[in-house]
Amino acid sequence: MLNLPDSQRLHGLVTATHTPFHPDGALNLDVVEKQAAFLQSKGVNIVFIGGSTGESHSLTLEERLLLAKCWMAVTKGSAMRVVVHVGANCVADAKTLAEQAEELGAAAIAALTPMYFKPKNVEMLVETMAQIAGAAPETPFYYYDIPSMTGVNLPVPEFLRQARERIPNLAGVKFTNPDLMAYQYCLRADGGGWDLPFGCDEHMLGALAMGAKGAVGSGFNFAAPIYARLLAAFAQKDFEAARVEQFRGVQIISTLASHGYMGAAKAVMSMLGVDVGPARLPNNTLTPEQKDKLHGELEAMGFFEWVK
Amino acid sequence: MLNLPDSQRLHGLVTATHTPFHPDGALNLDVVEKQAAFLQSKGVNIVFIGGSTGESHSLTLEERLLLAKCWMAVTKGSAMRVVVHVGANCVADAKTLAEQAEELGAAAIAALTPMYFKPKNVEMLVETMAQIAGAAPETPFYYYDIPSMTGVNLPVPEFLRQARERIPNLAGVKFTNPDLMAYQYCLRADGGGWDLPFGCDEHMLGALAMGAKGAVGSGFNFAAPIYARLLAAFAQKDFEAARVEQFRGVQIISTLASHGYMGAAKAVMSMLGVDVGPARLPNNTLTPEQKDKLHGELEAMGFFEWVK
Amino acid sequence: MLNLPDSQRLHGLVTATHTPFHPDGALNLDVVEKQAAFLQSKGVNIVFIGGSTGESHSLTLEERLLLAKCWMAVTKGSAMRVVVHVGANCVADAKTLAEQAEELGAAAIAALTPMYFKPKNVEMLVETMAQIAGAAPETPFYYYDIPSMTGVNLPVPEFLRQARERIPNLAGVKFTNPDLMAYQYCLRADGGGWDLPFGCDEHMLGALAMGAKGAVGSGFNFAAPIYARLLAAFAQKDFEAARVEQFRGVQIISTLASHGYMGAAKAVMSMLGVDVGPARLPNNTLTPEQKDKLHGELEAMGFFEWVK
Amino acid sequence: MLNLPDSQRLHGLVTATHTPFHPDGALNLDVVEKQAAFLQSKGVNIVFIGGSTGESHSLTLEERLLLAKCWMAVTKGSAMRVVVHVGANCVADAKTLAEQAEELGAAAIAALTPMYFKPKNVEMLVETMAQIAGAAPETPFYYYDIPSMTGVNLPVPEFLRQARERIPNLAGVKFTNPDLMAYQYCLRADGGGWDLPFGCDEHMLGALAMGAKGAVGSGFNFAAPIYARLLAAFAQKDFEAARVEQFRGVQIISTLASHGYMGAAKAVMSMLGVDVGPARLPNNTLTPEQKDKLHGELEAMGFFEWVK
Repeated sequence: MLNLPDSQRLHGLVTATHTPFHPDGALNLDVVEKQAAFLQSKGVNIVFIGGSTGESHSLTLEERLLLAKCWMAVTKGSAMRVVVHVGANCVADAKTLAEQAEELGAAAIAALTPMYFKPKNVEMLVETMAQIAGAAPETPFYYYDIPSMTGVNLPVPEFLRQARERIPNLAGVKFTNPDLMAYQYCLRADGGGWDLPFGCDEHMLGALAMGAKGAVGSGFNFAAPIYARLLAAFAQKDFEAARVEQFRGVQIISTLASHGYMGAAKAVMSMLGVDVGPARLPNNTLTPEQKDKLHGELEAMGFFEWVK
Repeated sequence: MLNLPDSQRLHGLVTATHTPFHPDGALNLDVVEKQAAFLQSKGVNIVFIGGSTGESHSLTLEERLLLAKCWMAVTKGSAMRVVVHVGANCVADAKTLAEQAEELGAAAIAALTPMYFKPKNVEMLVETMAQIAGAAPETPFYYYDIPSMTGVNLPVPEFLRQARERIPNLAGVKFTNPDLMAYQYCLRADGGGWDLPFGCDEHMLGALAMGAKGAVGSGFNFAAPIYARLLAAFAQKDFEAARVEQFRGVQIISTLASHGYMGAAKAVMSMLGVDVGPARLPNNTLTPEQKDKLHGELEAMGFFEWVK
Repeated sequence: MLNLPDSQRLHGLVTATHTPFHPDGALNLDVVEKQAAFLQSKGVNIVFIGGSTGESHSLTLEERLLLAKCWMAVTKGSAMRVVVHVGANCVADAKTLAEQAEELGAAAIAALTPMYFKPKNVEMLVETMAQIAGAAPETPFYYYDIPSMTGVNLPVPEFLRQARERIPNLAGVKFTNPDLMAYQYCLRADGGGWDLPFGCDEHMLGALAMGAKGAVGSGFNFAAPIYARLLAAFAQKDFEAARVEQFRGVQIISTLASHGYMGAAKAVMSMLGVDVGPARLPNNTLTPEQKDKLHGELEAMGFFEWVK
Repeated sequence: MLNLPDSQRLHGLVTATHTPFHPDGALNLDVVEKQAAFLQSKGVNIVFIGGSTGESHSLTLEERLLLAKCWMAVTKGSAMRVVVHVGANCVADAKTLAEQAEELGAAAIAALTPMYFKPKNVEMLVETMAQIAGAAPETPFYYYDIPSMTGVNLPVPEFLRQARERIPNLAGVKFTNPDLMAYQYCLRADGGGWDLPFGCDEHMLGALAMGAKGAVGSGFNFAAPIYARLLAAFAQKDFEAARVEQFRGVQIISTLASHGYMGAAKAVMSMLGVDVGPARLPNNTLTPEQKDKLHGELEAMGFFEWVK
């Protein structure tokens, strides 16, 4: 267990960034600098790269290594901290990514579980995560729990209990799970020593009420101002204002989801001047007509005002 | 749509009561008076009878009719409002129960969906609920959404949209669903005209943050003081205190669940002096040894102090 | 355990009959005689009444009692054997139905599990079934396994192991489950002493290959000749012919399912001259236009020739 | 659509081979020759490499390329045909593997769908498969349907309908799906032009009855004689014998599954003299004690006699 000081925890808004592609689908690392600058201009200073939003499972290992290298280079000397997602079906790949992240000096790494073969119990999950975390022993490690995508729905409080001794650099969990009951157990385990950024943007206000201090999400790529106002309103106990912002976030998510979330989210980035290109299969990419329609819906909703 | 005044809404703590049985499993209506008095002594003044906690699906129609009649008689002239759950696999049974509830002057009725045959879409769900609600046209009607039990997971915001005109006495939804995203849509639909008591005790603080005003739960049978303090703390924006109470509730639920929730919850009632008897099959009933063990766990936790 | 002689087993085609309703949805028992005669004319001599096809969960207890009484009266003195389904969410209702079935001299009874509250393990399922079976101790009892509808997916071989002693009149299982691996275990358990009619019409040929001797299905209401030819072809080891018939059955099921199975199946009965009326909510009923369209599709397929 | 002649179809027993590892988990290609020789000695002459049994998702891309190269070299000049599984979460990796397989002269390739991001409909699945198949345009391509592992449960008959024109080298489907209704549609589609090896060993007899001609499975690594006798008995229409063999297969599967299937299956190989080493995380590997226990169970069952 690694009880991080607040300054090193993933508090506030942690943006799960898109991976930029050329129109033909090839990796387009030139865009990373623009992404970083855009996010910094919106007040974001922690990024989570190569995660679900980053389409990590659609990237080759080589591409993931290049992506991490690029982000570390681009953010060098800046206030921006980089968390590298290293999870994969193949534990050996995850270890390679973890080693590189440590060499590069990433702020932290995170890994979701293999999901084709699923760990059959918490013991196997802990053992699998221990292998990965052990490849970057000097770097804070987060288990990335996201049962809606992996189909692995093992109890996180029990994971923490078993992993406490087994994984010395375990700092916490990226908790992308609407189970606020389990979340309470995690928040109170081991004297509050775990860092537990919450990963469901659309339930953020509920998690804040329970005690969340940070959030990792894809929505902060294009809607950080909304969520920043949500956090500020919550800090001031202004629920009316917080709910307004939370609901704006929710409306955006619903609208994007109705067009196919990944392709639509990437399309929004280009509308905001940061062209991260298409999504890769099996995710969809919007046609120009679909993009126009989405633009109209977002405009009608007030989106472009909300995120200024 | 029936936009109820606040005084008639299901605000605050609505207790989903147990159905009392004799040791041999026969209905034991003599206990109802004691249940009502106990709850009133704890500040509860709305009950939801014959719901999931009330084992409605394990009762005969005749028993459900007797139960409703008994609760209405016992609470007559008191400040206690009675909501009668009328849902069933058989729509004809649900209509019979609805008719009786209206004759008896119930404060409201609620119905979950048939779950053996499942409505295949929102249209069929609306049509089914319209039949039931139509049998008690002068009584506020609530759709009871509880996908974890029914396996029917249709979007509630869309239900409200389609039911608005079709069901004139629809007052809202008993929202026993952890989907706080859908909950936000419901809270904001039709100018906030729907009454939306939240039904997952263990997520209550999250729902309050989103804007919930009331809660329906089984936990209020034995832990109303905890949840009352939670509501008060939230009203005063004292999150530290609210979280403490919420976590107490969560620990109780976990402990009961580890013994088989229904049987354990009924055992707790007898520990508190209100002997509601065993549960019916297929739910379990605790043996005396299990009951002793549970008592010890609750005592060690502080439960009996918390609920004084 | 009740090891039935072959003559009393549910071999061959067991038809799960529809429950006839008037156009307004009221029970229409006058049709039962016609149903029985129609089925006998097609060579069916075992019926399974008040099951899933019979919309038992949409019937009141009173209606189920009347239905059983009517079928027993109509088939009195004939070669037709009647199996009464007695399962329900409410175990007390199931026991009432079981008692009546025994008094009426039903050939057997069957019960599916309560499905709102689900038995949490095989022990609780056995105990629940033991209560029901015990209400008709002189009547062969079948557990009706249908996980796709009940959501209860407990291992049937283990059920048989535990129920063998506990339920003396347990004769077997109505196996409505595509798990042919579990089916093999059941067929071989206890020296082949269990009667295991298979319940997925669309997989029948696969089950026959494994050793099935009987089948319970709704398709035999309107397509008994197809399945009778399938059985005959299989008995003669004429696979080409058997597959042709099996595929006919499959095409009919797909077509009906595309219109909403229950309503479409009842519409087909009226096309064949046995008007069993509409389905009850939450199942759908076909509009005249939908019925015309279905008729056209069935005609184009050759259905009316196949079932002559 | 590629309508293969019978001689090129995947008829009979196609063995999904294990990937051999050293005790420390490193790839151990020296064992491949032994695997091939062992399988040939058991009458197997088609292998499916790098599939689920081959732990493809736990291999690096480099390892998968080496594995394919090794198998092609080892089997060169022999009668053994090699099918290379190329599916992966990352479509680019799948294409790389497909290209290599074509260069190496593989008999065919197969791909399961990306499963972290799931194609949201048949169109997206077809498009994804078209990309992969297009990287090996001269090689027969099979879609590998295995919803129990991928969580992607799209209708295969509809896949064939849409892919027929879009994927010229599509030869059929490795059908690892117990849905014998869908299987019938596939068998009859396009004049029987598709090759549809069935992938659930434990249901094989059911699939044969429906018309299956081939089977792909992991059980053939260690139990090919059993399944060969099953096929022979079926060909002679000797059902009693076929069922005996099928049930032997089922008992072996149950026993292995009770120890953790992958680790247990690899342990069995070493008992038979072909040491394929441990499994990789998140799959389990048997301890020496567990292996002893498994050996005893298999011996008691008669396994070592059955597979001689």
